[in-house]
Parts: sequence; structure tokens; C-alpha cells
Amino acid sequence: MDHLDLLSSLTVESHRKMILLVLDGLGGMPRPEDGQTELEAAHTPHMDRLAREGITGLSIPIRRGITPGSGPAHLALFGYDPLRYEVGRGVLAALGIGFELQPQDVAARGNFCTVDERGIIVDRRAGRIPSEVGAELCRRLDTIEVPGVETFVRPVKEYRFVLVLRGLGLSPAIADTDPQQVGYPPLPATAEKPEARHTADLVNRWIAQARRLLADSHPANMVLLRGFAQDPNLPKMPDLYKLRAAAVAVYPMYRGVARLVGMELLETGDPVRREFQTVADHWADYDFFFVHVKPTDSRGEDGDFEAKKAVIEAVDEALPILLDLEPAVLVITGDHSTPSQLRSHSWHPVPLLLWAPATVRPDRVTAFGESACAQGGLGHFYAQDLMALMLAHAGRLSKYGA
Amino acid sequence: MDHLDLLSSLTVESHRKMILLVLDGLGGMPRPEDGQTELEAAHTPHMDRLAREGITGLSIPIRRGITPGSGPAHLALFGYDPLRYEVGRGVLAALGIGFELQPQDVAARGNFCTVDERGIIVDRRAGRIPSEVGAELCRRLDTIEVPGVETFVRPVKEYRFVLVLRGLGLSPAIADTDPQQVGYPPLPATAEKPEARHTADLVNRWIAQARRLLADSHPANMVLLRGFAQDPNLPKMPDLYKLRAAAVAVYPMYRGVARLVGMELLETGDPVRREFQTVADHWADYDFFFVHVKPTDSRGEDGDFEAKKAVIEAVDEALPILLDLEPAVLVITGDHSTPSQLRSHSWHPVPLLLWAPATVRPDRVTAFGESACAQGGLGHFYAQDLMALMLAHAGRLSKYGA
Repeated sequence: MDHLDLLSSLTVESHRKMILLVLDGLGGMPRPEDGQTELEAAHTPHMDRLAREGITGLSIPIRRGITPGSGPAHLALFGYDPLRYEVGRGVLAALGIGFELQPQDVAARGNFCTVDERGIIVDRRAGRIPSEVGAELCRRLDTIEVPGVETFVRPVKEYRFVLVLRGLGLSPAIADTDPQQVGYPPLPATAEKPEARHTADLVNRWIAQARRLLADSHPANMVLLRGFAQDPNLPKMPDLYKLRAAAVAVYPMYRGVARLVGMELLETGDPVRREFQTVADHWADYDFFFVHVKPTDSRGEDGDFEAKKAVIEAVDEALPILLDLEPAVLVITGDHSTPSQLRSHSWHPVPLLLWAPATVRPDRVTAFGESACAQGGLGHFYAQDLMALMLAHAGRLSKYGA
Repeated sequence: MDHLDLLSSLTVESHRKMILLVLDGLGGMPRPEDGQTELEAAHTPHMDRLAREGITGLSIPIRRGITPGSGPAHLALFGYDPLRYEVGRGVLAALGIGFELQPQDVAARGNFCTVDERGIIVDRRAGRIPSEVGAELCRRLDTIEVPGVETFVRPVKEYRFVLVLRGLGLSPAIADTDPQQVGYPPLPATAEKPEARHTADLVNRWIAQARRLLADSHPANMVLLRGFAQDPNLPKMPDLYKLRAAAVAVYPMYRGVARLVGMELLETGDPVRREFQTVADHWADYDFFFVHVKPTDSRGEDGDFEAKKAVIEAVDEALPILLDLEPAVLVITGDHSTPSQLRSHSWHPVPLLLWAPATVRPDRVTAFGESACAQGGLGHFYAQDLMALMLAHAGRLSKYGA
């Protein structure tokens, strides 16, 4: 039996509420001077208390050694096998800018690029044009009309944009037009399956018009498309787990992933205290709250140890807002590690604490940090198993077998 | 997605080099007087430093409780699911002596044995005849001609040899002719599947001639065959992981496994210092070095605690040769445990240390040993996951998903 089928078949309704607090990129590496990570160096009296009263462990986002992107890392936290349920790049990009994808839409990631007079790519990123220039060019491309399909062009950042096709009978089985290296012309859109021929034809007509519209706009005088994808139509959390699920997230990408799994999106905003207050404001209406804090990851990617530590401390300081709600289960973890020393996502397992006063078997860990969690009572486990642990501690899973 | 497919899809090239140092049968059991294993009792200042600076854990060769042979244990270390990729003993033996197996060849391990006048086995190893005698007898058997198939007989060591059949329509589904105990006659070759009947017939004709040719050569007057197998055509490491891989191993079996996964075999020899020097001599030419040290296992199988400990100390003393090369990633582990108390391979998980100064998240372990590694930051994990960890720490894996 599939993991989700198992969970779903055992889930029962309950009044006990759960909060999953994800500090994006929480995991870190020790700094040389005292061997402490950002989380360990941070002053976190509330988290330390929760770790002491609860149980801890290390969460492996995908598999050992695998560094995840945000999409698969969050799917795993929500209980979905991230190797089975793949969300295409185009869809993630569309979600990332808050574009409301419809079920049959096909989305692709786009780059403005530079081609020479023979049409050969000389710069795949068009000299990294400023975001304002990219946005202006997107407005130009958004005027393209291709008979039989509606098209949308939305800027992402600098030279990047999203192209969405909306219409009947579209297929995402289209190969990238980006040859991934300079010295070649952009490839035509080609169908990877017979049913995608019509879509490939529409994309090529769109590209032909884009080429004409951009002819005078050096260096961004051509486009490259990749990651064509459709809404993967994931099973939805309310159906799977028999609960009302809400997402409190500021960044579009995470709101997008939450919507893919059937959560309702609550209006909120920075700082983290405001996000927590959003949970409090809607406490009666939902059983499961996913709360996403972005700046831990951003400061890690900046390589700023102190700033990441400060974000963690701000979260800790605001925690009483959530604790006052008396959740049955509160989990604090990350979707992956973003050590400020590496300035990027990494594969290192992520510290996790599960607090559930009525049902937890506490371990001997007395502080929230990577080294402590490595000795935690939950051991090292795949993030995909977290939802089962949360549901169990909330009394929401019945017995398997007689 | 299959584990190897996932790894392969994420692997990128890099200049960072990796060394996998396998002390065969490294894991042990504590001696009563002080509760220390061979590794724990050994004076290993270099390994202890590496454990302190790196991260440690316990490697489970196949699955909990499963004692592996050398073949599957090494395949797992190289990233291959040992339950999916099976390699027959005959193939391992053939590759191990440098025999260039062709894809359709069928290979078997052979023993010279002693039978009495009634044809009953009285010694399954023919009094462990010297290698020179075995080689001379192999030359004799190599003259056998069986219509419809080409046959090769090559000596391994002492009483052991390899038989290879080359021809059309051969099948490896042949049961062993070795009854595994004295007091019985050798069994005829029998087909385990209908399509192997032709091959079984050819093998029996070969055995009949071998019996005649050996009739006068007491004590090696008969042969036993087992482990009939064909090249499993494994995916090759250079393709999977985008790297140049070399093997430094003295014993044929390990050279054979390494060749099976696409490593190049470097000329080397005893003692371990010479093996390490071989790595140094070829440092520029490869990205991944598999270095195999056999005597830890041999002394464990001898039941000689002190001798196994001494081998480990000799390895530690030679380690600076490898450390001076400044690898990006160095792993020291075993393929399985061979506790001298048990005088055999065992299922006990194997201590492992991973040293990668730029990317590792160290744990609190300060010495290399079984008890310490049981508390290590890598936890307890399948050996099959090691390659992902090595590639990750060498910056050779890209992100999974966006």
C-alpha cells in the first residue's frame, strides 16, 4: 500500500488542532569559533522549552545527500512522496509569482536571451537585464495573440518570466527550446508525445511573434522556454487527512504549493508576529495550520550567519502567540538546510521538534539545535513521515489492522 | 524514481576528488576484558582526528540483520541496490582474475577436489594444493574441447579456478555441482530452467572430460563447480556519476567488482602503504578512488583480534599519504563486519566516518569506533546511500526540483 493511501485510510476526524511551523532553510553548519550553528547560537528560550517537553529528531527532506528545491521539500512535509509527486518547473514558477493556474493551463519558464544576426545564442540571460526592463518586455509579449489559445506572460525577476497557455486540449509534453549553451540557435518547440503536437505548434507560433516583437530590443532580443508543465492534480489534504487546512505564508511560491495540496490561503504579511497573529485570528476555522517563515532561508543564502540567527530569535520571541492557542501538536522544523557558510540550499538533515503535551514520549534533548536533534528520540527520518507523526500525536489516526 | 536514476539525474561534474577507503570486514565486537572492539582498541590517531573533524555513523550493508558477501556489500557502497543488482559468484571470480568476460559468457567457480575410488568426495579442496599445481592442472583442463562451445579454464589461487563457457544460447541457470560436504559424489550439472538444458548438457560433457584428464593427479583428481553466472551488465559509475573512477585493490574479487561497475583497475600491491602510494601516483587522473584493504577481514576470519587490530593501526599510520593529497571527501568504512570472535562475516552495522572539510556538518564524535559511530551525526543508514552523501559533500549533486 502506498504511504498516502495508508495514512488516508486510517485518518479520523478530531477537534485537536495542529500547527506546522516551517522556518525555511532552518538547518545550518557550525561556525568555527564555537562549533554552533545559527539555530544553536540563537537565544531561543521558547523553542528550547518545547524541545525539552517534546521530542526531537533530524528530518531528511528527500533522501540522504539530496538537496531539495522548495517544491519537493514542502510536498514531503505535507506527506507526499517527493519522488512520486513531481511538480513541473513551469508550474512552480507560475505559483512563485502568484499566478492563478487553472487545471488545464500549460506553464513554462522563460528567459530573455541575446541572439546574433544569424539567430545564434550569444547570451542565455540577455546580460541579466534589470527587472524593470524584463517587466516592460513582458508587457510587450503579453499582447501576442495566437488563434485557438489564450497566452499570458508575467515577469519573474531580471531576465526571467513565465509563459502560460490556456485553452482546450493542451499538453505539457513539450521539449525545452533552451539548448542550455551558447553557440546554438534556440530550438523549436517539439512534442515529446503525439498528443502534444498541437500545443507545440501553438508555442512555435507564439515564439515567432515574440521574435518579431523583440527584434529591436537588444540585448533581450529573443526568448528561451523550458519546464513546460501542468497542475499535477495532487490529492488534496482535506480529503486525505479529513481536516480543514490553512496556509499562512507571505511568499508566492509557498502559497502556491499550499494551494496545490488543497490548503486555503489566509491573508497575512511580514513580520512573523503578524503571520502568527493570522493563525490566532483563524484558529476556530481550521484544524491544520502551515506557517511559513521565509527569511531564515534568505539570510542563509546571503551568507549572513548573524542575520539568520536574528530571524530565528524573532520567531522564538513571537512563539507565545501560537502557544497561547494551546495547539494539540506543534512542530517546528525547516524544509531543508541553508547553511550561511554554503549560501545555498543543502542536503544536511533538518532539526525538528514535535511538541504534543498529551501524547508525546519526550526524549532527553533539552535544547533545539542540530547536534541535540541528532540524538533525539525521533531519530533520523524522512520528512515524508512527519504528517503521520503529527496526525498520530493529535489522535487523528486509527489502528492499522485488528 | 529509482535511487540510481535519481542520483544520476542530479550529478554534475566537479574538480573535487573523493576517496572511499574500505577496510574489509572492519566492524567488530567488544572483547570482554575492556569492552573494546578491534577498531576501538587500536591506536588510530589519524582516524580519530578525522572522526572529530568529520561526521560519523553506522552503515548497514544490506538490511538490518543481513550478513553480506563481498559482492553485494561492495555494490551497495558504490550506490547500487544490492537486492536489485545481483552478481553471480562465477562472474565475480572471472572478473577478479582479469578474465575479459563477454556479455553472453557463462562463468562458474571451480574447486579441485579429491574423490575416492568410488567417486565420493573426501576433500572438497584437494588438500589445498599449491597455486603452481593448480595452475598446471588448469592448463591441462584448458585443452578440453566440447563441440558447440568454447571453454576457458583459468587458475585463481591454490585449489580454485574459473570455468568460462562461450557460445550461442548459453544460460547461467545451472545448479551447483558442489554438494558442499564430503561423503557424497559431485552432482551432475542440472538446469534450473528449461532454457538451460543445453548448457547443462555442455557442462556435463566438460566435467566428464575433466574427470578423465585428472584421474592420475591425486589429490586434485576431480572438480566441483558452483555459482554459474553471466555478466549482469550493470550501469557504469563513470556514466552514472559523471566521474573518472579508479580502483586500488590487491585481491581479485574486489578488482572484479570494481571493473563490473566501470572503474579502471590500477596496478598496485601490498602493503597498504603501497596501495595508498598508488592513489598518490594517479591522483591527477581520477575523481573517485576506491581503495580496498583486505587483511582486516582475513585476520577477523582467523579469529585473531590482535592481528586485526594491528592491520587497522598500520592503515592509520599510512593515512598521511592520502591526507597529503587533500581530498575533498574521504570516507573510511568497511563493506561489512568480521568480528574476530565470530571468525566470519556478520550483519553488525559498520563504523563509518566521512571527512569533508568544506561541506561537512560535524557531530560530537571524537574517536573512530563502533560505539562512538552509533551516536554519530549520520545516524544508521544503508550503505547504498553512501555515494549520494559523498557526491553531495563533493558538490557534485545539483538540487532536486525547483
